[in-house]
Amino acid sequence: MAAARQVFAEQGFDKATIREIARRADVTHGLVMRHFESKERLFLAAVPGTRDLAASVAGDLDGLPGRIADSFVRRMESADSADPFVALVRAAAADQEAAKALLAAMRSESVAAYRAVLPGPQVDERVDLLGAFLMGVTVSRYVLGDGPLAAMPPERLAGYLAGVLRTILLA
Amino acid sequence: MAAARQVFAEQGFDKATIREIARRADVTHGLVMRHFESKERLFLAAVPGTRDLAASVAGDLDGLPGRIADSFVRRMESADSADPFVALVRAAAADQEAAKALLAAMRSESVAAYRAVLPGPQVDERVDLLGAFLMGVTVSRYVLGDGPLAAMPPERLAGYLAGVLRTILLA
Repeated sequence: MAAARQVFAEQGFDKATIREIARRADVTHGLVMRHFESKERLFLAAVPGTRDLAASVAGDLDGLPGRIADSFVRRMESADSADPFVALVRAAAADQEAAKALLAAMRSESVAAYRAVLPGPQVDERVDLLGAFLMGVTVSRYVLGDGPLAAMPPERLAGYLAGVLRTILLA
Repeated sequence: MAAARQVFAEQGFDKATIREIARRADVTHGLVMRHFESKERLFLAAVPGTRDLAASVAGDLDGLPGRIADSFVRRMESADSADPFVALVRAAAADQEAAKALLAAMRSESVAAYRAVLPGPQVDERVDLLGAFLMGVTVSRYVLGDGPLAAMPPERLAGYLAGVLRTILLA
């Protein structure tokens, strides 16, 4: 895991290879693949996003948007370049196929977590819209880092995000 | 204008130069700069987004989110690569300084249009959040083009967007 985090942080999601991660961890390529199946799954297991998501989703439905907003902002404010949303945005430019695979893996992990708590038949559409929204906020505040969204204090941002996430997830 | 559209479409916002646009239009670099002041302003004048925005903003407040959503989806469904949101996403990857300048120009044009109709003191923050949201939808549906958002019919997408834009602009 430490080797994976290191290689993803140094080379970006799209350029990192399982071969290099296996080499640094002193294990075989085959062992990594048997455990994680794909580079996307290894990446999501290595970065904090996925574990955070499961913890934030658990709990009462009414508090869900606020928990997701707080967890996203807290993680991003302290994120290194290995955060899944930052990696996704960078990959979207550098390597579309890598970005598509990562987005699909993030979506599938998220849909599984949200299905456990969200009512209604459109969970996959809502989760995809939520992902797009958080990706856009990532570009504006954390990648370009310019303008009112980039300038506001984290608590204020979390308040805006909670309102929008409420509409996306519960409306 | 035709020369500008052509050069932006061929080379992307970040690589296009005013010098090349002036050369194709058979005018001087200085004349273009006197009229448009910057590459960002020339770009926004050359692509359809800005004129659409002014037309969509005008009208009753309650119908505003729906008009903006419909106009965004209609424009993107028929967009060539010169659409400002697609250009912004591509530039965000290729050339951060170009992307920042373009985002700032789009934000300033949008804030001016929305200030005319939106109540409340946080118009610039709401417009920036709206821009981030539409940028994220652009990446998911129109740049990566994969998943539930990419697969849904335009009318369904416009319905989701209208709900979120209502929260961002009027909540």
